[in-house]
Amino acid sequence: MEYRVKDLGLAERGKLQIEWAERNMPVVARMIRERFEREKPLKGIKVGAVLHVTKETAALVRTLKAGGAEVRLAASNPLSTQDDVAAALVKDGIEVCAWRGMNEDEYFSCIEFVAKWEPDIVIDDGGDLHAMLHDKFPSIAGKVWGGTEETTTGVIRLRAMEKQGVLKYPVIAVNDARTKMMFDNRYGTGQSTFDGILRATNILVAGKVVVVAGYGWVGRGIALRAKGLGARRVIVTEVDPIRALEAVMDGFEVMPMREAAKVGDIFITATGNKAVIRKEHMELMKDGAILANAGHFNVEIWIPDLEELATEKREIRPCVTEYRLKDGRRIYLLGEGRLVNLVCAEGHPSEVMDMSFANQALSVEYLVKNKGRLPAKVYNVPLEIDQEVARLKLKSMGIEIDELTEEQKKYLESWKLD
Amino acid sequence: MEYRVKDLGLAERGKLQIEWAERNMPVVARMIRERFEREKPLKGIKVGAVLHVTKETAALVRTLKAGGAEVRLAASNPLSTQDDVAAALVKDGIEVCAWRGMNEDEYFSCIEFVAKWEPDIVIDDGGDLHAMLHDKFPSIAGKVWGGTEETTTGVIRLRAMEKQGVLKYPVIAVNDARTKMMFDNRYGTGQSTFDGILRATNILVAGKVVVVAGYGWVGRGIALRAKGLGARRVIVTEVDPIRALEAVMDGFEVMPMREAAKVGDIFITATGNKAVIRKEHMELMKDGAILANAGHFNVEIWIPDLEELATEKREIRPCVTEYRLKDGRRIYLLGEGRLVNLVCAEGHPSEVMDMSFANQALSVEYLVKNKGRLPAKVYNVPLEIDQEVARLKLKSMGIEIDELTEEQKKYLESWKLD
Amino acid sequence: MEYRVKDLGLAERGKLQIEWAERNMPVVARMIRERFEREKPLKGIKVGAVLHVTKETAALVRTLKAGGAEVRLAASNPLSTQDDVAAALVKDGIEVCAWRGMNEDEYFSCIEFVAKWEPDIVIDDGGDLHAMLHDKFPSIAGKVWGGTEETTTGVIRLRAMEKQGVLKYPVIAVNDARTKMMFDNRYGTGQSTFDGILRATNILVAGKVVVVAGYGWVGRGIALRAKGLGARRVIVTEVDPIRALEAVMDGFEVMPMREAAKVGDIFITATGNKAVIRKEHMELMKDGAILANAGHFNVEIWIPDLEELATEKREIRPCVTEYRLKDGRRIYLLGEGRLVNLVCAEGHPSEVMDMSFANQALSVEYLVKNKGRLPAKVYNVPLEIDQEVARLKLKSMGIEIDELTEEQKKYLESWKLD
Amino acid sequence: MEYRVKDLGLAERGKLQIEWAERNMPVVARMIRERFEREKPLKGIKVGAVLHVTKETAALVRTLKAGGAEVRLAASNPLSTQDDVAAALVKDGIEVCAWRGMNEDEYFSCIEFVAKWEPDIVIDDGGDLHAMLHDKFPSIAGKVWGGTEETTTGVIRLRAMEKQGVLKYPVIAVNDARTKMMFDNRYGTGQSTFDGILRATNILVAGKVVVVAGYGWVGRGIALRAKGLGARRVIVTEVDPIRALEAVMDGFEVMPMREAAKVGDIFITATGNKAVIRKEHMELMKDGAILANAGHFNVEIWIPDLEELATEKREIRPCVTEYRLKDGRRIYLLGEGRLVNLVCAEGHPSEVMDMSFANQALSVEYLVKNKGRLPAKVYNVPLEIDQEVARLKLKSMGIEIDELTEEQKKYLESWKLD
Repeated sequence: MEYRVKDLGLAERGKLQIEWAERNMPVVARMIRERFEREKPLKGIKVGAVLHVTKETAALVRTLKAGGAEVRLAASNPLSTQDDVAAALVKDGIEVCAWRGMNEDEYFSCIEFVAKWEPDIVIDDGGDLHAMLHDKFPSIAGKVWGGTEETTTGVIRLRAMEKQGVLKYPVIAVNDARTKMMFDNRYGTGQSTFDGILRATNILVAGKVVVVAGYGWVGRGIALRAKGLGARRVIVTEVDPIRALEAVMDGFEVMPMREAAKVGDIFITATGNKAVIRKEHMELMKDGAILANAGHFNVEIWIPDLEELATEKREIRPCVTEYRLKDGRRIYLLGEGRLVNLVCAEGHPSEVMDMSFANQALSVEYLVKNKGRLPAKVYNVPLEIDQEVARLKLKSMGIEIDELTEEQKKYLESWKLD
Repeated sequence: MEYRVKDLGLAERGKLQIEWAERNMPVVARMIRERFEREKPLKGIKVGAVLHVTKETAALVRTLKAGGAEVRLAASNPLSTQDDVAAALVKDGIEVCAWRGMNEDEYFSCIEFVAKWEPDIVIDDGGDLHAMLHDKFPSIAGKVWGGTEETTTGVIRLRAMEKQGVLKYPVIAVNDARTKMMFDNRYGTGQSTFDGILRATNILVAGKVVVVAGYGWVGRGIALRAKGLGARRVIVTEVDPIRALEAVMDGFEVMPMREAAKVGDIFITATGNKAVIRKEHMELMKDGAILANAGHFNVEIWIPDLEELATEKREIRPCVTEYRLKDGRRIYLLGEGRLVNLVCAEGHPSEVMDMSFANQALSVEYLVKNKGRLPAKVYNVPLEIDQEVARLKLKSMGIEIDELTEEQKKYLESWKLD
Repeated sequence: MEYRVKDLGLAERGKLQIEWAERNMPVVARMIRERFEREKPLKGIKVGAVLHVTKETAALVRTLKAGGAEVRLAASNPLSTQDDVAAALVKDGIEVCAWRGMNEDEYFSCIEFVAKWEPDIVIDDGGDLHAMLHDKFPSIAGKVWGGTEETTTGVIRLRAMEKQGVLKYPVIAVNDARTKMMFDNRYGTGQSTFDGILRATNILVAGKVVVVAGYGWVGRGIALRAKGLGARRVIVTEVDPIRALEAVMDGFEVMPMREAAKVGDIFITATGNKAVIRKEHMELMKDGAILANAGHFNVEIWIPDLEELATEKREIRPCVTEYRLKDGRRIYLLGEGRLVNLVCAEGHPSEVMDMSFANQALSVEYLVKNKGRLPAKVYNVPLEIDQEVARLKLKSMGIEIDELTEEQKKYLESWKLD
Repeated sequence: MEYRVKDLGLAERGKLQIEWAERNMPVVARMIRERFEREKPLKGIKVGAVLHVTKETAALVRTLKAGGAEVRLAASNPLSTQDDVAAALVKDGIEVCAWRGMNEDEYFSCIEFVAKWEPDIVIDDGGDLHAMLHDKFPSIAGKVWGGTEETTTGVIRLRAMEKQGVLKYPVIAVNDARTKMMFDNRYGTGQSTFDGILRATNILVAGKVVVVAGYGWVGRGIALRAKGLGARRVIVTEVDPIRALEAVMDGFEVMPMREAAKVGDIFITATGNKAVIRKEHMELMKDGAILANAGHFNVEIWIPDLEELATEKREIRPCVTEYRLKDGRRIYLLGEGRLVNLVCAEGHPSEVMDMSFANQALSVEYLVKNKGRLPAKVYNVPLEIDQEVARLKLKSMGIEIDELTEEQKKYLESWKLD
C-alpha cells in the first residue's frame, strides 16, 4: 500500500472528524452506502480521485470502497488538505497522497500518483487530473472508462477539450447537476465564503459595501448571503448581459469593476476567469479594501499586480496579508487569493458535499454500468440520478411532497381544446 | 377592415394608456421599433396574434406594424381585455376581436377570426390558437411559416404535440427565454399576483401563512414576494423532488397540500396543472381561507368541488366570491379562479412585457428570416436574441457591464496545465 | 340626527364593506365589542372623532357605540372618505360629516361640526381637531375630558402645544403604542404605500431605485417593502444621525436628498416635515421620476415648486399627474401629493387598523375611567393596554406563547452573586 | 504594577491583533482618542473595568488611558480572554487580571482585584463587579463616583437593585444606547452568534429549522441572520406578548418552546433568563439537535438537566460536546452553554465594539464631569452622546446626511391650522 500524508498519528482525530461529517451526510454515508454495501456495484473497479482531502471527501471515498472499489486519492489544492482526515483514510486502506502546504511540484506529483496508477474511473475537481491524463499520459487516458468533474472551472476546461476534439473518455459534469449546483455552488459557497472571510478578518458585514465579481451560481449565492448578512450595498460585476440583468432583477447593483473598485469594502471573485481584479482596479480601491477569491484557481485576483504595486507586505492575522501601496493605502488579501472558504475556513459544510458526492457516487456507478457505451463527450448528470438525489435528501430531512393524480398526469399530456 | 370591440369611443383613453405603457417599454416601443421602422423586416407579413389585449400588447402590435406587418389580434382570456386599449388599436388600424367579459363561444369565435385569416406567423398565449389550427384547421396550419408561444402552459401543450408527432410548423418557446422568464414568470407574476390579491381583498400579508402550489419560475416569484411582503410562513407544495428541494434551500417550507391546507391563510396556485386544490383540501381549510390562481387556466383550483361543498355563494367585494360551506366555514375565491393578476389587477407591469415582447418581436423577425429552414419542432429562443434583449434593456436602464479582455478570452479557451 | 354624506343610497354596499373589514378585525369588532356590549363602559359619553372615514373606522365607531357612546364623525382628509361606508354609518345611527372630494372649507366645516358638538372625548388623526379646539373654541376645549391622537404628525403638534404650555386636556398618543406602530406605521404603511403606487402606475418595483425620505417607523416599513419587492437600490435620506446609522445597518444606502435626487426612479416621503422634496431636488431628477407621499399632510413634496418648474400638466392615468418641465423632463406626482395609500388605494388593511383602533377603543375607555385625574399632558398608551392588545391579537391568530416559571420570575428579580 | 496574565511572551502577537481591531474602530481608536489626548478629561481618574479581555477592549482601555485615566482590567467571562491581547495590554501599562480558562474562584478573585483597588469609575459587563461592590464591599461602593453597564443582563440586575433601593452610585446603562443596541445586541450578536456556531459545527444553515428563544434586540438580530443565511423556518419563543407579536409581524413563527423543541435543528437562547431550555424540552428534541447560548450567563440552557438525561458525554469537535441520552438520541451543546460567539469565535466584530465602547468612553467622561451631581439611579446614555457617536460613525464611513432648513425647523414647532 502506497501513500504520502503528513502524520499517521493524527488518524484518531481524523476519525472523529469523519464521524461528524458523516452524521451530516445521510445520503452518501447512510442511504447510498447501505445499498452499495449490499450490491457491490463497483467491485474491483480502480477509482482515481483528485479532490480536496476533507472529512466530506472521506465520506465519499468510504462509500465508493463500500461499493467494492479500490481508491487512490490526491489533493486538488495545495492548501486544502485536512491532515488528520488524510491519516484516518490511510488507516482505512485508502492510498492517499496529500498534505496541507504542498509546493507546486509536490502537488503535481500527487496527481501523477493517481494518473500513473491507471485508474478505470477518474474523479476530478478543477480538471488538473483530466488535463494531465490527456496532456502527459495520453495512452493511459485512452484506457480510462469515464470520469466526472466537480467544478465549473473543470467543466469549462473539459468543454474546451471536447470542442477541440481531444477528449478521450466520457465525462459527467457533476458540477452541473441541479442538486449539486443549488447546494454547492450557490448555498454552500455562499455561506462558506463568508465563513472564510469572517474567520480571517472578524469584520462586521452589516453596513459594508460588498462587490461580487461574477453572477453564476457561486456569485449568486455569495451576493444573496452578503445581503442576508446585512451589507449596505451588494454590487455585482458581469460580462454576460443576461446574467447582469438577472442580478439587477434580483435586487443587486450592477456596474463595471472600474466603478465598483472605488466604493467596495470587500471584493469577492467568482468568475472562473483570470485577472478579474487587476492593477487598474487596485489603483482605485479605498484604503483597507479586502480581497477574497471564491473561484477554483488563485488567478482571479491578479497577485503579480498587487506585488508590483506594493512597497511592503506582512501577515497581520492568519489568512490576512497586508499589502501597503506606494501612496500609503493598504489592501488586504485573504488566503493568498486561493479559495477563501477552503483555505481560511473548513470548506463546504458537510450537507452540501452530501449532495455533490451523492451525484459523484451515482455517476461513477452509472459510468461503470455504461462502460463502452458512451462516446467521449461531456455529459450532464442523468436526470434520474439528479432526481434520486433530491428524493433521498428530502427523505432524510423528513419532508414529504405531493404526487400527481392519474387525472393530473393525463391532463399534462393533453393539448386539445376540450 | 374587420374588428369587434366593446366601444370605439374609449379609444382616447386607450391612447393615453398605451402612451403610459410605452414609456415603460423602451426596448419594444423605442429601440426595436426604431430599427423596424427603418428596416421593415416584416413587410407584407400577416401576423395573427392571440394575446391578452392590454396596453402592453398594444406596444408589441404597434412595433410589428412599424416593421411592416399586418396584424390581427384576439383575446387570450375572456376577462383580460382592456376595452379602451382595444378601441385605440382599432383606430390605429389593427383588426381586433376582443372585449372584457366574453362567454366561451365568443372567446373561441375570436380565435377563429385570427385562425381563418390564414396568418403567416402566429403568436399565441396559452396555446389555444395553436391547438385550434392543428385540431380544426389543419390545412391552414400546414401553411403557417412559424409561431411563438408566450406561456409555460402553452409550451407544455406544444411539447406534447411535438412528442406525438403532430406539430405542423416550428414554434419558438418565447416563454423559455431567460430574459422572459426572469422578468415575466418570476418577477412580473410575483408582483402582479399580490397586486391582484391586494386590490381584491386589501388584506395585510405580514403575519399571514401563504401557500404556493408549484415552484416553477412563477411559483418562485410568488414565494419570494410573499416573503418580501412579510408573510409569517411561506409554504410550497410540489410534485418534483428537485424543485421541492430547491424550495427548501431557498428558505421555504415544503409539505403536501393536504398538510398545507390546514394552516394556510392564502393559497396561490401556479402549477400549470388541474385540480391542484380540490375537495379533499377544501375540507381541511380554515374559516376565511383565500384562494387565488396565478396559472394560465382556471382549472388549478377545482371550482366544481367548491360549488359542490358550498351551501351559499355571494360576491362580497368585486373580485371576491364568498362560498359558505355546510359547516359554516367560508372560503373566498378571487377572480373566479382565473389569473388573479389579470382579472383583479392590471396584469403584468409594462417593464415585464417589454422583455417578453422584445423576445416576441425578434422571434417573429427570426421566423420570417428563416422561413422554410426550420423543421416543425419547438425551439428555444436563440441565445443571440436573448442576449440582445438583455443588452438593450441594460442600456435603457443606463447600466454598463464589464467586457472580457483579450487575455481573458484566451484563458477561457485554454485547458492545459501550464 | 344631523349628518352630511354623499348619497345614502350607497349604504347597502357600505354595509358589505364593513362586514368584510370586521372579519379582518377580530380584536376591535369581536373581542372588545363583546365586552363593551356587556359592560357599557362608555354609556352616555359623547365621542367626537375626526378620522379617515373608511370601513375600518366604521368598525371602531360601531364598537364605541356598542360600549354606550354617542359618536360624531368627520373626515380627517378631503380625499379619503369611502362614501358607501359613510352612508352605512348614518343608517347605523352615527352622525357623519364626510364625503370624498371636499374642498378646504368643507373639510374644516366638518371638523367644526364635531368640535361645536362639545364632545367629552375627542379622537383625532393628524391634529386638526385638537388644533381647532384650542385655537378657535378654547372654552369648549376646556371642557373636554381627554383625547387621543392617531398619527405621528398629530403627536408632534400636540407635543409642541404641551411644550408651549397651551394644551388644555390630556391626550393619549395612540400613535406611539408599540402594537400600533409596528402594525400601522411600519407594516401597514409599508404595504399600502406600495399598493397605492402600484394601483396608480402599475410599474415593476424590481430593478428600480427607490428613495425613501425619513426613517421613522413609516419610512422603515416602506424601505423594507421596497427591498421585499425587489428594488435594485433602496436609498434613505434622514436628518437624524442615529436613524441614518440605523438605516445603514439595516442594509440601506444613506445619502443627502440632493444626491439621491439624481438617481431615484421612485421617491416616497415619510418625514412629517415640509418641503422635503423641493425645487433644488426636482431640478436634478431623471426624466420619468415618480413622486409619492406617505406622510400625513401634502406638504412633504413641495407642489408649488413643481407647479413653478412645469410648463404643462395633465392627468395621464387616474392618480398620476404628469408635470412636463422646461427641459422636456417629465415628473409624475401621485395622488396630488396626498397620502398615496389612502388616495390611490384603500388605505391600511383592516388587520392594521384592528390594532390601532383596539388601542383607540381601550384608550377612550381609560380616559373615561380616569376622568379628572390626568393633568393636561401628552401620554403614552398605558403598557397594560398595549400588552392587552397584543394578547388579544395573538389569541385571534391562534398563536400561543411561553410563560415565565416561578423560578424564572425569581431569577429576574435577583442580582446578587450566588 | 500588578497583573496576572497567561504569558507576557504573547505580547507581540497581541499588539498586531490590537492594531487590526483599531483599524476597524475609527470612532474609539482615532476620533475620540485624538480628542482625549488633547483634552485629558480623565486625568488622574481610576477606572476599574470588568470586560471581555479582547482586542477591542484593548482599544477602549488605551483610549481611556490616552484621556489620562489609570485602568485596572479583569475578565468578565472565564473563557473569553484573548491571552495575547492581555499580555500586550500589560506591556502597555495596564494592570490586567485575566486569562482564558479560569475557574470560578480565579474569576471572582480577578473581579476582586478591581473592586479592592477602590476605583473612581467602574465599567462592568454583566453586573458581577457592581454586585460584588454592593454585596461584599459596600464601603468601597459608597465611594464610587459612578459606573456603566454594557449588557442587558447587567442592566436587569441594576434595575432590580435600584427598585430595591440598594444602589449606591449612578450607573449609565450603556447597553441601552441606541447606537450600542443596534450594532451590538442586534447586528453584532446576530452575526457573531452564527460565526460561533459555524466555527464549532461547520453545518449549513440553509434548509435548517432554527429556534430563537427571546426576541429582544439580540434575539431579533439572530432571527434576522438565521433567515439571511437561508434557514427554512425561523421560530421565535417569547413570554412578552408585544415582542411575540412583533416577531410574527417581522415574518417569524412564534410558538411555545415545548412545540418548538420537537421541530428545531438549532436552538439559540437570548433571553437573559434561566432554564429557558430545560428537561421538558430536551426530552422532545430530535436526534442531533444543536444547542447554543447567546445570552450573558450559561444558565439559559439548563445544563444540569442535560447532564441528568445523558448516559454518555464526549467532545466530538472543539466547542462541541455530544450528550447521548438514554434513548440513543444525541444532543450537541456548543461552548458549554456559554456565550457562543465569544467562546467558539472571536466575539463581536471590532466595528460593533467601536460603537459600544464609544458610548463607554463618552459615558465615563460624562460621569467624571458630573461627579456628585447624579443621584444613585440607572440612567440612559444622554441623547447627545448617542447622537455624537452616530455622527462620528457616519463620518468615518464617509456618509453624509441631510440637514433641516430653517423653514423646516419652524414647521416642526408649529401646530396651528394655517
